[in-house]
Amino acid sequence: MAEKRLKEFYDDISEDLTRCVQFWLTHSHDDKYGGFFNCIDEDGTVYDETKHVWLQARQVWMYAKLYNEEEQFNTQAVLHAAEKGAGFLMKFAKDASTGRCYLILTRDGRPIKMQRTIFSECFYTMAMSEMAKATKQELYKTEAIQMMDRLIHWVREDDTDIRLGRPPLAGEARSESLAVPMMLLCVTHELQTLDPSLGARYRDIQEWSVQKALSHVQREGTVILENVSTSGTELPGSLGRLMIPGHAIEAGWFLLRYAKQNGHDELAQKAIDQFMNGPFARGWDDECGGLYYFLDADRYRY
Amino acid sequence: MAEKRLKEFYDDISEDLTRCVQFWLTHSHDDKYGGFFNCIDEDGTVYDETKHVWLQARQVWMYAKLYNEEEQFNTQAVLHAAEKGAGFLMKFAKDASTGRCYLILTRDGRPIKMQRTIFSECFYTMAMSEMAKATKQELYKTEAIQMMDRLIHWVREDDTDIRLGRPPLAGEARSESLAVPMMLLCVTHELQTLDPSLGARYRDIQEWSVQKALSHVQREGTVILENVSTSGTELPGSLGRLMIPGHAIEAGWFLLRYAKQNGHDELAQKAIDQFMNGPFARGWDDECGGLYYFLDADRYRY
Repeated sequence: MAEKRLKEFYDDISEDLTRCVQFWLTHSHDDKYGGFFNCIDEDGTVYDETKHVWLQARQVWMYAKLYNEEEQFNTQAVLHAAEKGAGFLMKFAKDASTGRCYLILTRDGRPIKMQRTIFSECFYTMAMSEMAKATKQELYKTEAIQMMDRLIHWVREDDTDIRLGRPPLAGEARSESLAVPMMLLCVTHELQTLDPSLGARYRDIQEWSVQKALSHVQREGTVILENVSTSGTELPGSLGRLMIPGHAIEAGWFLLRYAKQNGHDELAQKAIDQFMNGPFARGWDDECGGLYYFLDADRYRY
Repeated sequence: MAEKRLKEFYDDISEDLTRCVQFWLTHSHDDKYGGFFNCIDEDGTVYDETKHVWLQARQVWMYAKLYNEEEQFNTQAVLHAAEKGAGFLMKFAKDASTGRCYLILTRDGRPIKMQRTIFSECFYTMAMSEMAKATKQELYKTEAIQMMDRLIHWVREDDTDIRLGRPPLAGEARSESLAVPMMLLCVTHELQTLDPSLGARYRDIQEWSVQKALSHVQREGTVILENVSTSGTELPGSLGRLMIPGHAIEAGWFLLRYAKQNGHDELAQKAIDQFMNGPFARGWDDECGGLYYFLDADRYRY
């Protein structure tokens, strides 16, 4: 019975995937300037031509991944779409002076906004890495490794470029976000699957990311807090008490994968208990279903 | 019958006001560092000690206004609370090098964040102006007028300080927000009620603000768009189509007041028809009641 239901789920998901990819192949490609429209109504109408770098890069990664791993998408059309998107990103997403990636571009690739975070760069790296797998071209691999080197520099050595030159204000808490080590663990994993020999190169940043992620386990293991101090303690106020259950579960996924690959049983158990089961139980809305997006560890309402 | 209901409403509102002011007098005052706690749960618990400049300034303005205009609040306790809040703002809210106001401060007044908008400064000016009325002290009046001068400089002559030194990116639309002229109209009105002789000083910026506000009337008078181009035309995409009905109605309030004071009948009619009635009808949610916060002029969903 359970197996029959699994088959049903699988068929549904498979159908959804085909339909979904077809939607994006049909409606999102910008044949004039390259890249993808990513503000599209449910009937396929492009309601805004702005191009968001996260979404451009995720679409490139997704096409390349489907090309690499799913027979029905292992076609020249899918590969060609991925290449056009990657070309747009390489040409327009980066700021020439710092190598950072913008957050938002106009349809024709002019920069609109740069954020003081590293996530455009993370998704850029993942896109290039998956493109290197799909095409075996050194160009993409070099691009991915260069951006990863910069990411490590910004996160561990000097964040001036990330802060856009603005020094911290006197009362600003030097907080650390779970999203940073979580994403570094994810992106280095991608690069390692592209080329296992990169494992040694990223061992150090991966171990650092695991330790940083674990510093978000607070209150004797009962909560995952999104922001902690640079010394790994709980910050005062709402910033310190913020919990994002979906984020914690995502971090658990990457930690579990890392733990399994490296034979760290204790870490695997922590990933399951503290990052997945705990936040799931705590974050589930018993009344209406679904996970809360934001919670306060002391149960104040947002 | 209608008159009886009006009396009921008035009594309810009067009771709510007394209860609400009592809540803030009881729970929000920071006797140690001055200023007000503004993250307070419904039972009065302070759940975060961060001090937000908009809210500090609005509380100062509110106390001073109540002291000035409502007999039950014309007490030394209310005046003293307003003075303590104003003192905290004058001491900590401003950046010494530019005269700009921060957005967020720590409990003890150290800066956490400065925004690339003018609204902290607008609320600061309003607070100082109302304090000048309450105390007749030149200090507050000078403070209000100086900040107003800077606001005019930033908005009309040089926005470098507002942009925190960051030049516009190549693809960034030079858009103008309805909030800016609307707030300048509101703040100069405050200063004029403090000292009618300031009317001449602000005539120019008020006329400019009215013209700028009117440039947000688009599509032959049928919509108020939140953002328009610097030449007063509709911007492409979601940014251009954004409507904020509550904002439009608020702008209508300030425009109507200005029109009445200056005997501009045509402007008064526009304020009522285009800024109030139109956005109210368009923004009202017939299904669940209430005004939508954001709408798209082409009815795409947010």
